[in-house]
Amino acid sequence: MSARPVVKNPTAAVLIIGSEILSGRTADQNLNFLANRLFALNIQVEQAVVIPDRPAVIREQVQFLAPKFDHVFVTGGIGPTHDDVTTTAVAAALNLKVVLNPQARVWLEKHYGNAGALNSARLKMAEVPEGAALIVNPLTSAPGYKVQNIFVLAGVPSIMQAMFDQLVHHLKPGPPIHVLSLKTTVLEGQIAGPLANIQSDFPRVEIGSYPHLNFSGQTPYSLSLVFKGPDSVELNSAALQVQNVIKTLGHGFEVIVNDVKETGQ
Amino acid sequence: MSARPVVKNPTAAVLIIGSEILSGRTADQNLNFLANRLFALNIQVEQAVVIPDRPAVIREQVQFLAPKFDHVFVTGGIGPTHDDVTTTAVAAALNLKVVLNPQARVWLEKHYGNAGALNSARLKMAEVPEGAALIVNPLTSAPGYKVQNIFVLAGVPSIMQAMFDQLVHHLKPGPPIHVLSLKTTVLEGQIAGPLANIQSDFPRVEIGSYPHLNFSGQTPYSLSLVFKGPDSVELNSAALQVQNVIKTLGHGFEVIVNDVKETGQ
Repeated sequence: MSARPVVKNPTAAVLIIGSEILSGRTADQNLNFLANRLFALNIQVEQAVVIPDRPAVIREQVQFLAPKFDHVFVTGGIGPTHDDVTTTAVAAALNLKVVLNPQARVWLEKHYGNAGALNSARLKMAEVPEGAALIVNPLTSAPGYKVQNIFVLAGVPSIMQAMFDQLVHHLKPGPPIHVLSLKTTVLEGQIAGPLANIQSDFPRVEIGSYPHLNFSGQTPYSLSLVFKGPDSVELNSAALQVQNVIKTLGHGFEVIVNDVKETGQ
Repeated sequence: MSARPVVKNPTAAVLIIGSEILSGRTADQNLNFLANRLFALNIQVEQAVVIPDRPAVIREQVQFLAPKFDHVFVTGGIGPTHDDVTTTAVAAALNLKVVLNPQARVWLEKHYGNAGALNSARLKMAEVPEGAALIVNPLTSAPGYKVQNIFVLAGVPSIMQAMFDQLVHHLKPGPPIHVLSLKTTVLEGQIAGPLANIQSDFPRVEIGSYPHLNFSGQTPYSLSLVFKGPDSVELNSAALQVQNVIKTLGHGFEVIVNDVKETGQ
């Protein structure tokens, strides 16, 4: 119950718009992609929210998340159909008008050709909140955009990922967050007491304990103890103390630092 | 931008507690499981939130979600380690005391045996908010619980799923939601106009449009048009109109009803 050590890194929220995810029809892939890519930039995703394609709910969440986090990444609901309501809702949340972006229109004209294929539904994909900066869509031309601290991206994973690659160089990475994991077969309940004491002694190291059960695999149980923090010396000291506890309890461990594994004990 | 048709079914929110999901270390599996199982009961998941193991954030979200939705399903943070703070935070959100549940203690004693293995860290797993009803954990004994409209379950997917199987018969299913999908190769932008008109004509049918891109597969593009609603006659009428539009545009389609596929045109 003690307050978590605060690592002063840029923060982000992810807002996933898609009724199909809430009905179970589609398993979301966007959160894990964004979480990994942002973590690699030392930007911490602190909240993710999945909501239906409903304007009032989108507005509510944009107004809740945008002031709280440095960046908000929105995915989904920027296509041509009636259920694509993200842009209108984001603009309403920020009290901005929706305007047709001339550059976006040019990209769409080029993509769809001149034969009247750029109908009014498709032209909707050139609309953005006033003042938004476009994010290139190298796959299907209809762009995403950044408005204030909000990045609005497509919901289709391949397009969202391609858009992220276009915007990523605009994101300022945070100071390094060091990560070290110990993988062991100690039971959580055996090590919980000493682990809590070590956490208390190292308030700037965040220690997480993640048990894995896999009854069909060779190792039905394993435990990952994950150390994160801004200071690698403190982090290694905390991890070393935990390694000693694991040894005392008669177990071995694997150390995983930046994907380099060493086997302990 | 028209208001969505309101289907009066029981609603649910899913609150996933786990810093490991927000760092990208672990891809969440619990939302998709719960969304599918609840949808099968005609209970609509309307929001899902992923937050870190931090008491203040857990409290905030419980207080936001519990009054808004019929059920709230919480996963994660009920183990024995220092970063398992869910129970204390849920109790604080509801202004309830945390108490040791005697039945939960008996289950833990039986599971861990008499040799003092039930240490204070493990005994924490017998603590619940005052008045909570236990949910059996057939795998590792430490129970989940229901308090008010909140179901608190383990974060490890296999345990969470086993707990859900124990509680599912307590959930009252909602009135049937009929679902029909059309799978086609029509481009979204070709059909968006007529689709919006058909949606307007059938306010009690919710029509969703979901493009899929799969550049490595045999079909690089496909479109799923999903019809949902309480009245199967209205739903079939709306779908039939869309089928006619697809034919007029020179495309074929597959009709998918309760996993039975018929090929159209």
